[in-house]
Amino acid sequence: MSPPLRFAMVGGGVDAFIGGVHRLAAALDGRAQLIAGALSSTPQRSLDSARSLGLDPDRSYESYQQLIERETARPESDRVDFVSVVTPNHLHHPVAKACLEAGLHVVCDKPFTMTSVQAIELRDLARNNNLVCAVTYNYTGYPLVREMRSLIASGAIGQLRKVYAEYHQGWLATALEDTGMKQASWRTDPERAGIAGALGDIGTHAENLVSFVTGLEIDSLCADLTSFVPGRSLDDDASALLRFKGGAKGTLTCSQVCVGEENGLTLRVYAETGALIWRQENPNVLEQTSLDGDRRLITRGGDRSPAATSATRLPPGHPEGFIEAFANIYRGACDAIESKRAGQPDADTLTPTAEDGRRGVRFVELCVQSARDGSSWVEWTD
Amino acid sequence: MSPPLRFAMVGGGVDAFIGGVHRLAAALDGRAQLIAGALSSTPQRSLDSARSLGLDPDRSYESYQQLIERETARPESDRVDFVSVVTPNHLHHPVAKACLEAGLHVVCDKPFTMTSVQAIELRDLARNNNLVCAVTYNYTGYPLVREMRSLIASGAIGQLRKVYAEYHQGWLATALEDTGMKQASWRTDPERAGIAGALGDIGTHAENLVSFVTGLEIDSLCADLTSFVPGRSLDDDASALLRFKGGAKGTLTCSQVCVGEENGLTLRVYAETGALIWRQENPNVLEQTSLDGDRRLITRGGDRSPAATSATRLPPGHPEGFIEAFANIYRGACDAIESKRAGQPDADTLTPTAEDGRRGVRFVELCVQSARDGSSWVEWTD
Amino acid sequence: MSPPLRFAMVGGGVDAFIGGVHRLAAALDGRAQLIAGALSSTPQRSLDSARSLGLDPDRSYESYQQLIERETARPESDRVDFVSVVTPNHLHHPVAKACLEAGLHVVCDKPFTMTSVQAIELRDLARNNNLVCAVTYNYTGYPLVREMRSLIASGAIGQLRKVYAEYHQGWLATALEDTGMKQASWRTDPERAGIAGALGDIGTHAENLVSFVTGLEIDSLCADLTSFVPGRSLDDDASALLRFKGGAKGTLTCSQVCVGEENGLTLRVYAETGALIWRQENPNVLEQTSLDGDRRLITRGGDRSPAATSATRLPPGHPEGFIEAFANIYRGACDAIESKRAGQPDADTLTPTAEDGRRGVRFVELCVQSARDGSSWVEWTD
Amino acid sequence: MSPPLRFAMVGGGVDAFIGGVHRLAAALDGRAQLIAGALSSTPQRSLDSARSLGLDPDRSYESYQQLIERETARPESDRVDFVSVVTPNHLHHPVAKACLEAGLHVVCDKPFTMTSVQAIELRDLARNNNLVCAVTYNYTGYPLVREMRSLIASGAIGQLRKVYAEYHQGWLATALEDTGMKQASWRTDPERAGIAGALGDIGTHAENLVSFVTGLEIDSLCADLTSFVPGRSLDDDASALLRFKGGAKGTLTCSQVCVGEENGLTLRVYAETGALIWRQENPNVLEQTSLDGDRRLITRGGDRSPAATSATRLPPGHPEGFIEAFANIYRGACDAIESKRAGQPDADTLTPTAEDGRRGVRFVELCVQSARDGSSWVEWTD
Repeated sequence: MSPPLRFAMVGGGVDAFIGGVHRLAAALDGRAQLIAGALSSTPQRSLDSARSLGLDPDRSYESYQQLIERETARPESDRVDFVSVVTPNHLHHPVAKACLEAGLHVVCDKPFTMTSVQAIELRDLARNNNLVCAVTYNYTGYPLVREMRSLIASGAIGQLRKVYAEYHQGWLATALEDTGMKQASWRTDPERAGIAGALGDIGTHAENLVSFVTGLEIDSLCADLTSFVPGRSLDDDASALLRFKGGAKGTLTCSQVCVGEENGLTLRVYAETGALIWRQENPNVLEQTSLDGDRRLITRGGDRSPAATSATRLPPGHPEGFIEAFANIYRGACDAIESKRAGQPDADTLTPTAEDGRRGVRFVELCVQSARDGSSWVEWTD
Repeated sequence: MSPPLRFAMVGGGVDAFIGGVHRLAAALDGRAQLIAGALSSTPQRSLDSARSLGLDPDRSYESYQQLIERETARPESDRVDFVSVVTPNHLHHPVAKACLEAGLHVVCDKPFTMTSVQAIELRDLARNNNLVCAVTYNYTGYPLVREMRSLIASGAIGQLRKVYAEYHQGWLATALEDTGMKQASWRTDPERAGIAGALGDIGTHAENLVSFVTGLEIDSLCADLTSFVPGRSLDDDASALLRFKGGAKGTLTCSQVCVGEENGLTLRVYAETGALIWRQENPNVLEQTSLDGDRRLITRGGDRSPAATSATRLPPGHPEGFIEAFANIYRGACDAIESKRAGQPDADTLTPTAEDGRRGVRFVELCVQSARDGSSWVEWTD
Repeated sequence: MSPPLRFAMVGGGVDAFIGGVHRLAAALDGRAQLIAGALSSTPQRSLDSARSLGLDPDRSYESYQQLIERETARPESDRVDFVSVVTPNHLHHPVAKACLEAGLHVVCDKPFTMTSVQAIELRDLARNNNLVCAVTYNYTGYPLVREMRSLIASGAIGQLRKVYAEYHQGWLATALEDTGMKQASWRTDPERAGIAGALGDIGTHAENLVSFVTGLEIDSLCADLTSFVPGRSLDDDASALLRFKGGAKGTLTCSQVCVGEENGLTLRVYAETGALIWRQENPNVLEQTSLDGDRRLITRGGDRSPAATSATRLPPGHPEGFIEAFANIYRGACDAIESKRAGQPDADTLTPTAEDGRRGVRFVELCVQSARDGSSWVEWTD
Repeated sequence: MSPPLRFAMVGGGVDAFIGGVHRLAAALDGRAQLIAGALSSTPQRSLDSARSLGLDPDRSYESYQQLIERETARPESDRVDFVSVVTPNHLHHPVAKACLEAGLHVVCDKPFTMTSVQAIELRDLARNNNLVCAVTYNYTGYPLVREMRSLIASGAIGQLRKVYAEYHQGWLATALEDTGMKQASWRTDPERAGIAGALGDIGTHAENLVSFVTGLEIDSLCADLTSFVPGRSLDDDASALLRFKGGAKGTLTCSQVCVGEENGLTLRVYAETGALIWRQENPNVLEQTSLDGDRRLITRGGDRSPAATSATRLPPGHPEGFIEAFANIYRGACDAIESKRAGQPDADTLTPTAEDGRRGVRFVELCVQSARDGSSWVEWTD
């Protein structure tokens, strides 16, 4: 086992949910070690968070600018290998840009940027500087999501016809943002979240899951966005009809006002000779149907694809969950970074890239455009 | 217990699926007794079917015209009380019209008619002649569907926000109509099925379920219809975005090419303070969520609404199914007929009426109009 | 279709649960028609119940003795074809005996008799008089129970190793008998229920299901019986270890104090190369596993055994339930009666017989013997 | 966050399943860091495994004796804080004993020892030397298992009546040990596994889960052990009837020949006014029933007990699994060690102790005694 990569985190202070998840995921396999951070946009909080995480005071920074400046001032062998960007959405672009310009690999949370122009800039910057810029669409890390992708690619269910993607949550069914709850506040604030609410936060996960699993490309879409909770300016619910290149059709719905739903991400793919169904809340089962009728419950064990097998750590029946899937994203990012450092050609680590991030942002833009135009049909243009 | 009503059946010969279902449903409670029939559009087959069902040869007819003529020629006390119309779609209107004009109550399968103009004609004819004209949207007969309706009407989950209705089957995923299979043949034939395929056959059930359970009225819709199986002229798959009067939104998807799905009718209703979820394939459980988090599994037992309690025959844990639900529709129709015969004012038997049938046909027309116009938004007009 | 057999019912007045179930089941296929009854042990109640069911006053009897006397006084072509015995347990034997002695076929509820000596007497009486004596172990009527039986008999899962049978209810978790509730009162009363409570009422169903599905014969058993509710003299809970002839092992648990369980009858059979699992509360799914790992969900459709196919009335996805399964028991009894009347050799209708009833009563006796002897092991002797 | 404790591992070389699990679990929270090891009973393999795990060669040992000798030769501040013992069963006792005698805290896998005499020796040694000796009954680490325990302790379901514990696997349904598969070989070998097979390996988990969750103490038991696979000398299947002090009853079944079962550990507890059901393969849901009928699905979110809340890392809907539960055991062990080092009184960390380990070994002994004596009843004696 090679020594862990060392990374810094921007954002993700102790009161942020997602920062802790990134740290757990990075730590799980011992592939990445957090050694530096600018963990909050408020300098003092940033230092406090760093101390409470036990970071070296020398590498506890007041701002991301300071972090980049000081880390890159260190000898190459001593600087961080990559930076995890886990700030609210509006900061993804400036932070990631600064990192990439400074020659640092980036792992960035989603939605990738506020605009697809920004996303293209980051994508191209990473390419031109030969840097990794991964986007943590973590649900693609589940072994059975990868199995689903492999099965479809292998033709196991024939040509795709209909895709149902949904991501339903209920935690924003009331005006939680008015209670001062931090997660709700920035996610419902256009300044920090961008032009979309639920659509950006979770709709992009659904879009990415469709793309990752099916390989289908959206040809046109028609989206209806709603803000159900009074006083909320961004959508908290969206439904879209999708038409894919090649003739498949689909629906994608996402909502944060589905009372009682916790994290209901589900993908159902129907094709000529079979179907595959996966539900994030019960992630260790993949359902497969075929024309002859019976329903097969596939678990992580048995004769699975290499992509699924290499993504699992435990025998079937020993439940794996969210952290392991997230850790697979980090593992892929670490593989990609090490591959670049070794001067090897890029392998497909399955970890989503800036291009995947860009497509998600574009998806949001086109849905918002459709909605603003009376939920009319919009052709996909990059 | 009053003596059973006596009824005739038009269509539903021995090789038809749905005729047998109607007979089982009518027989279950001993409320209706089949005594006459014109069971096929082919005279000889009609007589053969009648014989195999043990009908009196005197009341085994060669055609529905003959049936109506001869039955109405009998003294009133000896004629059939009502006629069940279970033919392919295109015959619903002429048969029902002839029955209603002859003073016979009607129980008609769905979709009610080929056009909403026909539906209006039947609805008004029934009203003017003071006759029952019930439509067998059988899924509304399930006790827990009625419980769901009662809970929503009582305000148990607050104001409605989002409705997901889906009805997914897979039996037409291949060109079954080319094999000579009767069910598939007429359902995919515009001459006999009408302007829609899956949408008319099962989409109307989904529309009716939404209407019955939520009471919401569609304000506008946008539908995308597809014929996935090569050579098929009618849709075998449809997805629609719905906007309801009052601000609720919804999606309705129906498909007969979802390989492996048997009879996947599901309704999920999310509202301000709770949600309710019901799945036809597991009909004895109703899920209820609320803002405080836990999910409650409601079964037929316990403190249910009168509407649910009166629709159930067995203690919870003793599964009820499709036939019982269908029988509840017949029970309601019999109640309505007896009520009319007794000169009582019409009670709400919960059995769907010609007006429900009309709304379903109109739904189909508007979806087809939307689809023909590039899946544009269409305002609901009656 | 042959005309329905005509039957009388002893017990099953309007306030009894199981009488209504028998009537629904008998009516479902139009194979049997209720025309006479002695519906209660109280003469006036018997007549009242008959009237409310619309029975002919001439055939509404005050007692089962009167019923048998008067029916057998009629010309053979006019008398009832069989008698359904749905009284509390202690009357099964005298009523069935009188019927069989009078030459009337019998359909009897379970547990068959109070003692196995009585059961042997009825079994032999039926045999000697060439009469049908069916026992309504209704759960064997489910199509997928019959599929399970067929699969095991065909060797689909290899030699049987371990059987888990459980039947868990919760309705007697409190002293419901003290509230005057009729069902609870007689079931907890040794005078009317016999030497066992839960064990006799539902344990016999579990025993029968094991026997029907697996064909295994118990070699010895060890049972622990408990009366958890204070003041109750009969068991409301029982657990038994089973050893079968040939080396398979098993557990059988039944309880009526499992709060929240409605009618939790489950059978799991593990064998050399596969396993089969069926749950009564979700009866339209049979799970099959095999050595290679995946779990297959079998529904009523597809390539099922003749035994399963002939027991189902609807396509898969259209839930069948308790009544249909019960109706299959009646159908088998009617087939058996008609077969005898036609002078044909007895076919295996799959409907349980007096011998099955006897084995169930013997099972109860041996469990009680084991329990009384400190839950020691008891060899099976007939 | 305090710096991680540093630990050594005995056993758990790279080809062992459970060693990797312990490492993942220890790493998850950053509470414990592996710095030394004697990872195999074969010196060279031990060193190879250490190298592949990136351990410092100075702390890569050839044997556990060498490990203990050299580590304790280091200054206290530099030696390992504790030793994880993850060898086959027969080595637990000698290794743990040597560690405890050398003053090193121990985390030991289960079953704790080969005999209860050994277990008592270790327990007392730990007590007398004021050392932690934790046993990794990892299933008690699940948040909802801890919730179940808290609910029962709080009286939420009233006095306990019936407990069903089962742990069913299928991986040893064939003679896997004959294929040279390491896991199967030692687990079926009395020299290394002890007097029991399935009972020791997984039955002890079930016993521990019952004890942890319910607090009930076994008063007597009756066990039937079987070796279904030809040639196997230890049990691969066991069923036991349990009687608890205070009147509750139970069954415990464990098997490794249940084809198709992966890791089916389930606990169902029925009590006077409610019931609780938990299934390891779907660990993020706890079912609760009550006398009024509905079934409530409890997830990790909402108003849970402190014991459950502190054991969870993610919001509900984000599945947690086996590793997180296992990590909770390590976290408790680390808490206990730090507490001892700080000279504080022992807090209840919920991590199982040597006494829990001893009780499990005693359970095995008494089951084996019962089975050897014709599956007779055996009183519990410590």
